[in-house]
Amino acid sequence: MSILVVGSIALDTVKTPFGMAKDVLGGSATYFSVSASFFEPDVNLVAIVGDDFPAKYVNLLEGKGIDLKGMVTGKGKTFRWEGEYGWDFSNPRTIATRLNVLSRFNPAIPREYRNSEYVFLANIDPQIQKQVLNQMARPKLVACDTMNYWIENKRKDLVKLLKKVDIFLLNEAEAKELAGESSLVKAAKAILKFGPKRIIIKKGEHGSLLFSGNSVFSTPAYLMESIFDPTGAGDTFAGGLVGYLAACKTQNQAGLADRQANLRKAIVYGSVMATFAVEDFSLRRLASITRADIVRRFKQFRKLTHF
Amino acid sequence: MSILVVGSIALDTVKTPFGMAKDVLGGSATYFSVSASFFEPDVNLVAIVGDDFPAKYVNLLEGKGIDLKGMVTGKGKTFRWEGEYGWDFSNPRTIATRLNVLSRFNPAIPREYRNSEYVFLANIDPQIQKQVLNQMARPKLVACDTMNYWIENKRKDLVKLLKKVDIFLLNEAEAKELAGESSLVKAAKAILKFGPKRIIIKKGEHGSLLFSGNSVFSTPAYLMESIFDPTGAGDTFAGGLVGYLAACKTQNQAGLADRQANLRKAIVYGSVMATFAVEDFSLRRLASITRADIVRRFKQFRKLTHF
Repeated sequence: MSILVVGSIALDTVKTPFGMAKDVLGGSATYFSVSASFFEPDVNLVAIVGDDFPAKYVNLLEGKGIDLKGMVTGKGKTFRWEGEYGWDFSNPRTIATRLNVLSRFNPAIPREYRNSEYVFLANIDPQIQKQVLNQMARPKLVACDTMNYWIENKRKDLVKLLKKVDIFLLNEAEAKELAGESSLVKAAKAILKFGPKRIIIKKGEHGSLLFSGNSVFSTPAYLMESIFDPTGAGDTFAGGLVGYLAACKTQNQAGLADRQANLRKAIVYGSVMATFAVEDFSLRRLASITRADIVRRFKQFRKLTHF
Repeated sequence: MSILVVGSIALDTVKTPFGMAKDVLGGSATYFSVSASFFEPDVNLVAIVGDDFPAKYVNLLEGKGIDLKGMVTGKGKTFRWEGEYGWDFSNPRTIATRLNVLSRFNPAIPREYRNSEYVFLANIDPQIQKQVLNQMARPKLVACDTMNYWIENKRKDLVKLLKKVDIFLLNEAEAKELAGESSLVKAAKAILKFGPKRIIIKKGEHGSLLFSGNSVFSTPAYLMESIFDPTGAGDTFAGGLVGYLAACKTQNQAGLADRQANLRKAIVYGSVMATFAVEDFSLRRLASITRADIVRRFKQFRKLTHF
């Protein structure tokens, strides 16, 4: 099954207690697509970069088999984000956000991409997310991310979009803010009423929760001795999740009896992928792993959690 | 297998966003023993109460089959704690702590209790915890709780005690403080070096972690729509944990091949018991449940977490 991701490509400057990296490859579409490429070879990327975007990063993405027909090069500089993490890795301090070419991002989906069955709408303006969906033929699964900025400034558009979403991903604070509820369970129930079929609430080092109808799945995070740089963890998680689901579908056109089981495994694969992303700056670690690394960590995850 | 708990019995005055309860039954030994009594009938309690301790609470404990030969009545008032929880239930604000008779607590273990195989040293001065152990014949399992106060003021005694402890229970902040480590995994490894065979780190609404040798078990918390009053959750957890382990041993004198499996189940039973404790003030809910309620919630827990 082919996957389409629409999101950002960035050059990140990141400072952590362990060091600093300047103008390194980042962005939601980047982390997502590299992560998904380990599960499903057919990943299509729509994003905008500036004319300063280094060829080595194009090579990195192409080396993962990611289709870049949808990557537009705009006049000007690539989107840049600069941030700093303290010892508490849950919240970075943003030093600078320079949208550059991203401010003119108005994604046109290439004709060849419009039949993509699995769609990931990374964290961008919900109005643009909707425009993307309008260009798609008939996706089997739409996953969607967001952030507090859109909850606060484009709430109506976001809520409207959710009716067309199969899996809505957001973090704990965003879920509580969107629902206006201090209890996470109540927040999830309220958001499900907006229309998304399922919600995944990402809790960082505390794991994640899946709410779908009356079923709930709760999983802790994989246990890590230390985190190096958490940038991109959420999008890498989404890449593993959607990638695994697309691969399940490819391998088994028929029965979906164990859809819930696949979904749970997909969440664990997403968590596993995120652990690789946070082990180094940028995609240094994530882009260098093998399928065997992933399977090994998935098995360790099961050993860590089952009783 | 018989269980011995040494700890406090209190009259708590608790305020939460949902209401207030005055001079209600509380204390570590109370929550622990009632929780353990659902698994193992032979629970022996050592604690001190004042001459104002209400007969109805004695009846409640005796009604659960808890042996109170070790419950001494001192001259003066029962230990009282007064606290308030805000919407963030993880940390209460202590309004008043009146030790009263507890300040003279110097537990003498009744001769009939000295052969108890399972011992829980609830959160008291580590010097007193050690005196208790010195009076015991040959316990099969010693579990021990503590708090930041002892880590800060009786660190040497605590660390010395840990060599004789099979399961050391503490929360996330306490683990980091005791080890002087900001990473929980590193903290756990450092504490294991002090000598306890296993550590359980309680993370409240985020679940718990078991570290033993090279094996780690991570479990999320049972998902609750709302918490009413978290007082006693930790001791109730310990009661389910030790109670289940003692019951395993009673039922299966022979093989211990699946010791790790039992330990994991014991942690889940502990978590399950804690969910009942937090559903109402004091022991109102915990004391009124049945075995069937526990088994039902254990099964839901498995459904919530397995993939």
